[in-house]
Amino acid sequence: MSRGLWGLILSGLSMALHAAPGLDADDLAAATLLRDSALNSDVAYELLESLTTEIGPRMAGSPNDARAVAWGVEKLQSLGFKNVHTQSFEFPLWRRGPESAEILAPFPQKLAFTALGGSIGSKPAGVTAEVVEVASFAALNDFPEAALRGKIAFINNRMADSRNGAGYGAAVVARTQGASAAAKKGALALVIRSIGTSNDRVAHTGIMNYDPTLTRIPAGAISNPDADLLAHMLKRGEPVKIRVIVGAKLSGTATSHNVIGDLPGSEFPDQYVVIGGHLDSWDLGTGALDDGAGVAITMAAAAHIGKHGPRPRRTIRVILWGNEEQGIWGGKAYAESQKNNLRQHWIGAESDFGAGKIYRFSSFTKPEALADIDKIMQVLAPLGIERGGTNASGGPDLGPMKALGMAMGGLEQDGTGYFDIHHTPNDTLDKVDPEALQQNVAAYVVFAYLSAQTRSDFGFGLTPPAAPVAR
Amino acid sequence: MSRGLWGLILSGLSMALHAAPGLDADDLAAATLLRDSALNSDVAYELLESLTTEIGPRMAGSPNDARAVAWGVEKLQSLGFKNVHTQSFEFPLWRRGPESAEILAPFPQKLAFTALGGSIGSKPAGVTAEVVEVASFAALNDFPEAALRGKIAFINNRMADSRNGAGYGAAVVARTQGASAAAKKGALALVIRSIGTSNDRVAHTGIMNYDPTLTRIPAGAISNPDADLLAHMLKRGEPVKIRVIVGAKLSGTATSHNVIGDLPGSEFPDQYVVIGGHLDSWDLGTGALDDGAGVAITMAAAAHIGKHGPRPRRTIRVILWGNEEQGIWGGKAYAESQKNNLRQHWIGAESDFGAGKIYRFSSFTKPEALADIDKIMQVLAPLGIERGGTNASGGPDLGPMKALGMAMGGLEQDGTGYFDIHHTPNDTLDKVDPEALQQNVAAYVVFAYLSAQTRSDFGFGLTPPAAPVAR
Repeated sequence: MSRGLWGLILSGLSMALHAAPGLDADDLAAATLLRDSALNSDVAYELLESLTTEIGPRMAGSPNDARAVAWGVEKLQSLGFKNVHTQSFEFPLWRRGPESAEILAPFPQKLAFTALGGSIGSKPAGVTAEVVEVASFAALNDFPEAALRGKIAFINNRMADSRNGAGYGAAVVARTQGASAAAKKGALALVIRSIGTSNDRVAHTGIMNYDPTLTRIPAGAISNPDADLLAHMLKRGEPVKIRVIVGAKLSGTATSHNVIGDLPGSEFPDQYVVIGGHLDSWDLGTGALDDGAGVAITMAAAAHIGKHGPRPRRTIRVILWGNEEQGIWGGKAYAESQKNNLRQHWIGAESDFGAGKIYRFSSFTKPEALADIDKIMQVLAPLGIERGGTNASGGPDLGPMKALGMAMGGLEQDGTGYFDIHHTPNDTLDKVDPEALQQNVAAYVVFAYLSAQTRSDFGFGLTPPAAPVAR
Repeated sequence: MSRGLWGLILSGLSMALHAAPGLDADDLAAATLLRDSALNSDVAYELLESLTTEIGPRMAGSPNDARAVAWGVEKLQSLGFKNVHTQSFEFPLWRRGPESAEILAPFPQKLAFTALGGSIGSKPAGVTAEVVEVASFAALNDFPEAALRGKIAFINNRMADSRNGAGYGAAVVARTQGASAAAKKGALALVIRSIGTSNDRVAHTGIMNYDPTLTRIPAGAISNPDADLLAHMLKRGEPVKIRVIVGAKLSGTATSHNVIGDLPGSEFPDQYVVIGGHLDSWDLGTGALDDGAGVAITMAAAAHIGKHGPRPRRTIRVILWGNEEQGIWGGKAYAESQKNNLRQHWIGAESDFGAGKIYRFSSFTKPEALADIDKIMQVLAPLGIERGGTNASGGPDLGPMKALGMAMGGLEQDGTGYFDIHHTPNDTLDKVDPEALQQNVAAYVVFAYLSAQTRSDFGFGLTPPAAPVAR
């Protein structure tokens, strides 16, 4: 569409401005045009191909993480974003080392194993002990202490697959808190069934935490087929002895960065609609779904508006969040930095649940904004998106901002099968459906454009529910 | 069913014997009863659980291979087989060592890599060189020599999935003959896209051969996602440098064994219907589908007849073949040992295509036997099995016997998805559907029982087509 035609639409919009407080027909018409052209854009896929091919795994604090930050700055600049800059923050540096697990007796077999993020290392020779199986994290807490002293605890709960990832939230406590719970009972190390749904022989990593009052023990995950194997062996009733080697190190402090770029608003350039994904990944795959997709979708969406649309009234800010995986470090740093600027943050949404199609749009705003949310919903509906609830999470990195009362949109992706891939070596580009990626971009275009055009008060001063957890 | 009732059936059968040369109604009735009771048997699954749990990977010549042979002897004895014995043979010993591949420039990334079976080792520091991509084995042969000299050849052909495994046969030449073809052009090493259909980040191993007139170079496979990554990087047009480390060793000679057990025939105990699977596996998975399933199915089928059926006229011989994977060593040894006993081998069938349901029954017999084959087909049909052609392979380990003119049955399994698993770490018990395993056992029960009852001349003196290849 020519700039002239946009001009006509804009003057219509300008006339409507004083007539009604909500989004008007011209806003919706412009968003519809942008949405439909975004469905034909290859920009997100090209960005994702570039990130996974030229950077690949980018664990926070690693040399590749620094290369990813440089990549983000360069791509935002070349896509025409303004005010492109980085925001630094520090965090404890964790590095993976050589790692393995194997059954030594009664039937020797190697196990597909990976250390959990944040685990301490074992001695180089590893921890060798008998395995004791517990059904779940809850069962571990109820376990008789004498049965675990000097043993390796094996939490064998399997997570369920679902569209919204509910099974993950239920199971992940075994990973995040299992080591300290096992240490409390005297265990020497923790092995968990992967918090993932895949039957591939690849183990699932992810962050864990230690209770500072308890002994820290090495912790790792084995793949689902290996957990099955170990369970089959244990059910024979003979002692099963395994050796676990974790070469990981947690030492010193690293620095990483959020990468920020703005599409400046025409009327209120210092009011922000914030979209983005997290730039860091785990080190096992190339971080295509977690969260290269979110990075690519949101960069492409804002760039699409900047290139093809009328300039919206507010600034669309894209944030490529740093170090989400190890504790939402970038998200916390951003919220801290914006303490005196909270009310300038209009609404936000992070894309961090893979590359499946968006099927639902939820919101978290003041009630006064719901009429505009309904209008946004009208333009999203033809993308196959249904209206969701009014407690949108906004994503892990915007959690700290939501905790301060910022409004959120929730463009909820179909996560069926996501936990087959997530945090494993299988998180690679071939798992991404280019058409689903385009649908995501189109939805973010609609959400970001119309949110930046709204006149109703979206938020701040909202009382958030419990903060979301890292994915 | 009581032995008394079997006696009645048997006397009916005995009367029919002189009346007609083919299988009679009593034969078919007995086979039908055995088939239906086999559908409720858990014996095959229990055997497979035992083999994968208590032995696991069992590459020919490894300590686990010897443990598997002992397992086979013990299980055949405890299942009531007679004449349980082993047959030894020798072969070159190949051992896997530390192995890795990584892209060094322009964008460093690690690759999921495994050495091909039979590959020589590299120097400990590996082979470091630029990669040259070729589309297929055929394209490699046509490639200009100068372009490969001092380089690492990368054959990037992807195999297609199919029910009958046709895609494997078309693609596997890159693995079996690629190294020598690359060496002929001056390449320093060979890397191939895995000859498998999985998008998991696990590479696919399997046997390769060297042309003795050419320089031997190290050879390995990368997973499909890694092949995609390498291709994405190469299409940027800059040189891509990789390092390949293969710690494998081919040295000396090892001994392994076929394990043989008989269910002796009531009338012609020295005439054999031969069924079986191969006991060895590759070392990456636990060999559940390749070929623990075939071992379990055929042991369970013959044992089911022995325990529940009337004793058939001929001997049903179960052979757990040794070292199929590295060149059908057990199959060749057996054929060699039976040179003076060929006509005692009535018909054979090996189960070696995973654990999917059998969907087709093909045959390879003299035309005189086709009337009986049609009767066997009648009893197989209710299992969802259709009639196939008259050029049954009989399986890789019976290939040498087929080459000498032995008749074969082909109980053809649905191999859709088989090459997602085959020869990778993902070949584990969880991939096996217990119900499909029961259907396989029931089909082998029908085939083995009725073949052992037939009166028509099945074979020998047959002119075989080209010998089948190792799977």
